[in-house]
Amino acid sequence: MATITEAKVVVTSPGRNFVTLKLTTSDGVTGLGDATLNGRELAVASYLRDHLVPLLIGRDADRIEDMWQYLYKGAYWRRGPVTMTAIAAVDTALWDIKGKVAGMPVYDLLGGKAREGALVYGHASGATVGELLEDVARFQEAGYRAIRAQAAVPGVAGTYGVRKGAVYEPAAGALPEEQLWDTEKYLDFAPRYLARVREEFGFDFHLLHDVHHRLTPTEAGRLGARLEELRLFWMEDPSPAELQENFRQIRQATTTPIAVGEVFNSVWDCQQLITERLIDYIRCSVAHAGGITHLRRIFHLAELYQVRTGSHGATDLSPVSMSAAVHLDVTVPNFGIQEYMEHDPVTHEVFRPTYELRDGALHPSDAAGLGVELDEEAAARFPYDPRYLPVGRRSDGSVHDW
Amino acid sequence: MATITEAKVVVTSPGRNFVTLKLTTSDGVTGLGDATLNGRELAVASYLRDHLVPLLIGRDADRIEDMWQYLYKGAYWRRGPVTMTAIAAVDTALWDIKGKVAGMPVYDLLGGKAREGALVYGHASGATVGELLEDVARFQEAGYRAIRAQAAVPGVAGTYGVRKGAVYEPAAGALPEEQLWDTEKYLDFAPRYLARVREEFGFDFHLLHDVHHRLTPTEAGRLGARLEELRLFWMEDPSPAELQENFRQIRQATTTPIAVGEVFNSVWDCQQLITERLIDYIRCSVAHAGGITHLRRIFHLAELYQVRTGSHGATDLSPVSMSAAVHLDVTVPNFGIQEYMEHDPVTHEVFRPTYELRDGALHPSDAAGLGVELDEEAAARFPYDPRYLPVGRRSDGSVHDW
Amino acid sequence: MATITEAKVVVTSPGRNFVTLKLTTSDGVTGLGDATLNGRELAVASYLRDHLVPLLIGRDADRIEDMWQYLYKGAYWRRGPVTMTAIAAVDTALWDIKGKVAGMPVYDLLGGKAREGALVYGHASGATVGELLEDVARFQEAGYRAIRAQAAVPGVAGTYGVRKGAVYEPAAGALPEEQLWDTEKYLDFAPRYLARVREEFGFDFHLLHDVHHRLTPTEAGRLGARLEELRLFWMEDPSPAELQENFRQIRQATTTPIAVGEVFNSVWDCQQLITERLIDYIRCSVAHAGGITHLRRIFHLAELYQVRTGSHGATDLSPVSMSAAVHLDVTVPNFGIQEYMEHDPVTHEVFRPTYELRDGALHPSDAAGLGVELDEEAAARFPYDPRYLPVGRRSDGSVHDW
Amino acid sequence: MATITEAKVVVTSPGRNFVTLKLTTSDGVTGLGDATLNGRELAVASYLRDHLVPLLIGRDADRIEDMWQYLYKGAYWRRGPVTMTAIAAVDTALWDIKGKVAGMPVYDLLGGKAREGALVYGHASGATVGELLEDVARFQEAGYRAIRAQAAVPGVAGTYGVRKGAVYEPAAGALPEEQLWDTEKYLDFAPRYLARVREEFGFDFHLLHDVHHRLTPTEAGRLGARLEELRLFWMEDPSPAELQENFRQIRQATTTPIAVGEVFNSVWDCQQLITERLIDYIRCSVAHAGGITHLRRIFHLAELYQVRTGSHGATDLSPVSMSAAVHLDVTVPNFGIQEYMEHDPVTHEVFRPTYELRDGALHPSDAAGLGVELDEEAAARFPYDPRYLPVGRRSDGSVHDW
Repeated sequence: MATITEAKVVVTSPGRNFVTLKLTTSDGVTGLGDATLNGRELAVASYLRDHLVPLLIGRDADRIEDMWQYLYKGAYWRRGPVTMTAIAAVDTALWDIKGKVAGMPVYDLLGGKAREGALVYGHASGATVGELLEDVARFQEAGYRAIRAQAAVPGVAGTYGVRKGAVYEPAAGALPEEQLWDTEKYLDFAPRYLARVREEFGFDFHLLHDVHHRLTPTEAGRLGARLEELRLFWMEDPSPAELQENFRQIRQATTTPIAVGEVFNSVWDCQQLITERLIDYIRCSVAHAGGITHLRRIFHLAELYQVRTGSHGATDLSPVSMSAAVHLDVTVPNFGIQEYMEHDPVTHEVFRPTYELRDGALHPSDAAGLGVELDEEAAARFPYDPRYLPVGRRSDGSVHDW
Repeated sequence: MATITEAKVVVTSPGRNFVTLKLTTSDGVTGLGDATLNGRELAVASYLRDHLVPLLIGRDADRIEDMWQYLYKGAYWRRGPVTMTAIAAVDTALWDIKGKVAGMPVYDLLGGKAREGALVYGHASGATVGELLEDVARFQEAGYRAIRAQAAVPGVAGTYGVRKGAVYEPAAGALPEEQLWDTEKYLDFAPRYLARVREEFGFDFHLLHDVHHRLTPTEAGRLGARLEELRLFWMEDPSPAELQENFRQIRQATTTPIAVGEVFNSVWDCQQLITERLIDYIRCSVAHAGGITHLRRIFHLAELYQVRTGSHGATDLSPVSMSAAVHLDVTVPNFGIQEYMEHDPVTHEVFRPTYELRDGALHPSDAAGLGVELDEEAAARFPYDPRYLPVGRRSDGSVHDW
Repeated sequence: MATITEAKVVVTSPGRNFVTLKLTTSDGVTGLGDATLNGRELAVASYLRDHLVPLLIGRDADRIEDMWQYLYKGAYWRRGPVTMTAIAAVDTALWDIKGKVAGMPVYDLLGGKAREGALVYGHASGATVGELLEDVARFQEAGYRAIRAQAAVPGVAGTYGVRKGAVYEPAAGALPEEQLWDTEKYLDFAPRYLARVREEFGFDFHLLHDVHHRLTPTEAGRLGARLEELRLFWMEDPSPAELQENFRQIRQATTTPIAVGEVFNSVWDCQQLITERLIDYIRCSVAHAGGITHLRRIFHLAELYQVRTGSHGATDLSPVSMSAAVHLDVTVPNFGIQEYMEHDPVTHEVFRPTYELRDGALHPSDAAGLGVELDEEAAARFPYDPRYLPVGRRSDGSVHDW
Repeated sequence: MATITEAKVVVTSPGRNFVTLKLTTSDGVTGLGDATLNGRELAVASYLRDHLVPLLIGRDADRIEDMWQYLYKGAYWRRGPVTMTAIAAVDTALWDIKGKVAGMPVYDLLGGKAREGALVYGHASGATVGELLEDVARFQEAGYRAIRAQAAVPGVAGTYGVRKGAVYEPAAGALPEEQLWDTEKYLDFAPRYLARVREEFGFDFHLLHDVHHRLTPTEAGRLGARLEELRLFWMEDPSPAELQENFRQIRQATTTPIAVGEVFNSVWDCQQLITERLIDYIRCSVAHAGGITHLRRIFHLAELYQVRTGSHGATDLSPVSMSAAVHLDVTVPNFGIQEYMEHDPVTHEVFRPTYELRDGALHPSDAAGLGVELDEEAAARFPYDPRYLPVGRRSDGSVHDW
């Protein structure tokens, strides 16, 4: 029995902030887990360092399920982004270790490959419709078969999802940027530019769009109905989803497929969405939904109801998360798609993943474990750099869902 | 317009750990908020210090609702114990400030007193039934009209709720105590000792019992049915409540009143429990359920469905929380009962509340704001002392809900 | 403790009839509440004078919640327009008093401003489509960003909502005017003139339309579907709403947003509409739905279900109501819009409000309390002038919902 | 065509307050309607005198249905006790007239007698259990076959339903009496005294009990279950019923029959209770639920769902109401029972009904119309005497449903 002998929380900012847990066992095996919670990183780091690390030392590294139950039920105060991200990091690191101990890639421990690779979608965007169309073309040339399209809404500064430079990173301010939101302008504009994308590029690729929680269920239903002829792969986060039953109305209003889940932390956040089939894609991530152990359960529940997966995979998750996602993606029968934003090259000075993008799909390597290395010396060169996600406000000054 | 000029996070351990937020405005008015999350204190302290305090400085202290929306929606990653406790601390401190600015106790801002005081229940316990009976007598002599009774289950070491010394404090270990749990033994024993309490003391007081999440809905229904003739005031936390619809079975099986909610952080955790009337008492607390602003909404929702309040009020919440609870309790028409454990006297060296226990009820003072003072010098004398809540395990070694 | 020492019911008719309750406390502070129920004014005045005023004298002015419960539950015969309007007047006056005692505008007692002002909509109308278009232009020039459009249906005398002179006042007769109604003519005509408005003025403003309870759910669903391309802000009162579940059919038939509530008096009238998300906007008013205390609960319930507010604000409510509405509007996160008809100038000889219309939004002043003064001498110059709302009849002589 | 030429509102207090509407037609036929709303009498009198009477003069007395629609829909502000009681008075008076014009008792216009008489229940009560038993015996000797039993709860002053002198009249104070309520004491005591009644008098008569809205659904379910072996005819008003769906829980918990409705004013108040069969008896009254025209519809809806009638019939309704109730009772197939408190003899100096109590049942006379005469001269001798129903408060001072 190997026990955990060291547990280290590494906070680093190569291009953006990441929190990583590194576990070492009595056999000298190491494992990595991503604990990044965009804009609230240090709270998770504290949860790990101050409250979980003391519990890990000396515990059996093999008992991943027991560890999960111990940390989840033992916390007493369950669920939520900070707690579940911390638990996820421990869980992911233990799966990395177990793979290395077995001499197997993690996907093999999860039942082996059920597909060759994980179809991904990239983020095309533009400050104008013209720029968006150029960006879509660029992604197609790069081999992407699925592309999310977002254009800046005229008169709405700082629209979600529109890249300013080479990299899209909304968590940009030392204080949160307050971005204006205007539902009417968006509802007027979005169907028109998405139609332009279809006109220009046809239907022979997957077109996705992210509403980013901005609409009421009624507005979302209206938008979905209007977009039906564009045959979107999905309409993402059409409405805030704390009250899952609210999605019933969207479902009744439109047949446009619906994807939700990047802000969810546990199966309880989506149980009704899945069991009533109010969504088509569940988008929870390894890092924020309790690790491989818990996310696999969510995906298995979804399978029963013919709901597919479409995990969150923005650059606010580290290559450790991305690798874990891909290992899981290739094993579950109801895999749908994987979000993928390429990390800033500087990120790869610290994190060295081995997955590869080929033909618009990510392929895990056959390295044992998750196949990602952390260069701690490099990490030390990039100290934490506080950043906040923006806050949305309407023109009357009231807070809107960002 | 007064702005927030200072925001200080005070971590202190007078008897046990507490995290307190102290806000100061440009007019020199100060307000306090409790941010204590038992066993995970420093993660909340970090959430506040590292992520919220920079947002608070310079903001309008009057705009409590806007602040709540800004912190809740602006976090992007919503809900959960760490997040909601941090938001609660800000909210509570702002109500304290507003009361002082208005020259009114907070209850007056909340609509004024709808009752004279808040009925409380105390925690009687015993390592044996005999000791439990003595303890019940002691509480009755002290004027309590409502008493929770818990006795150690023979053969089950470290039963929940059984006091060892003068004070019950389950968060006792530098590492979590692992406590054995045996459902069958408990189900056999509990109805018998509770019956003994009724035999000894009759029906002319409120008898409560806490199951502490240990049973399945089937087991909870069985227990509830068996306890009906004892006419409990409530059966608390009969089963884990992440899946709210599971409580339907308990409800169908028994008319024993059900109380749930101390681990909930938002209305979304109990919306179905309330709107389907699966519970009789909602036990969320100011500190863990988003502050006065959010808890009041939960209580008002409960009112529509004839569900009463019964807020968590163990000593894991500071006197700031307790005072906020009492101010809210006296204003809502559907108040039921308030949990109350007397703080260790040493706690009052740091926190000086003005509420008073008379005739088994807590009475808020008429001081402006919440009526609690924090002695920061005294606080500094009690450094943080890491403690964990216990973890439950069955005899086969598996983790059980503690 | 200040007690109520005087309670006066003022009936006055400056331009139209208003009933106002004026309370005075032992400290000499006064508060106003609107008790106007269009066409049934004296019944509310009697309810107040003969049955409530004797209860108010000597009671604690601070205990607003207790007063509400006392009047609502103490009546035994609950709910309904007369009862709830009388209770609302007491409640509003007590909030006015509490604000003055605290030295704060009422919005500060309600959690502070969550937005700068309350977007309003005005009432454009025309005896012909041409006149309607001129009227819309006039409202746009006056800065309105949201406009309700109603045109007289050819062949249907006295269509609802069509102004005859400078002011629209349907309660015009010493006996009720009997107006002809023809559903088929309306269904044929309304979509066409609303389309004309969009053709003429485009989509860059909010267009509203009031069906005024005239359709069956099937007809309403048909109309809503036909109007979808016009992207209405809302379709108001599409069908009588006593049986709330009937709105399910409208919802299934169309994504046009639905607004209901000006005739509701309590949360029980809209609980199902809200919790099943059968509507998008809840239009209850302070004066008819139990005052600030009760209306706030309705709005908070709506918030949970992503239903927004859109309070009734015709000139059948006095400036006291309008002010209370604006104070509440600026504090609730789910505010949608506020109806606003400018009062006849002569009304302002009696009621002197301090809210201001700027850029199509109402802004409360920062005066303590509600910021409205009542000139009792002026009031005395305008004696009660009995007026009735019209009654609708179909061509066969049968009564139709007006 | 006879038109209404005179409409007179008579307020009189022979023993207690009554409001009566007297209509006279152009043919000189008169009709009476009861408009009494206990404790809020003058508001209904004003609603009639100031707002309805001007509408009645000159209108066709034959068109009862049209009148109802005209007053209900024409009011715009619908429902509620004041409005519906006023409409009921007009409706009842028109039925009285129509009977006289036809030369038939009203029951003949309603389809004719479907039974010989209407079984009634009387109100036995006692300050002690002994007194209650004596009172039950007294009612049995008087021929009553159905008896409601209420005893004063020890330690609870002024228990509902307990007669002090010869007549029970809760509306006794010039200000509302504030009565202490204690749920636990009641729940402990009530089953015991009701059991005593069954022990003493056996099962060969109908035993009823009125909870008078005092319990939560859970408490009501518990009580109902405990009373099952006593085979009550019904358990009345077990819980406040604004939220009709709350009765689902009571239904699941017990098979004790449930009766509700004396505070309801329209079919909308009980539509869900009936269509989900959450109750066994609907207790609406002619006077408060919109008159014979509307109450008949409620009873017919109930018939479809095998729910029976059990109209409210306390002395807070005048002999005009009682007569109308009996005429309706004998015609509907789903009649269950009729509440009947004998009026103070002084009441009969003003109102002279012709119905008769024989063998525990009320029998309408075969006089044309309703068979009640109003002596206006006598009425004038008994001026209005303001009285209030009591208000309930718990021991902590908070308002409880009375």
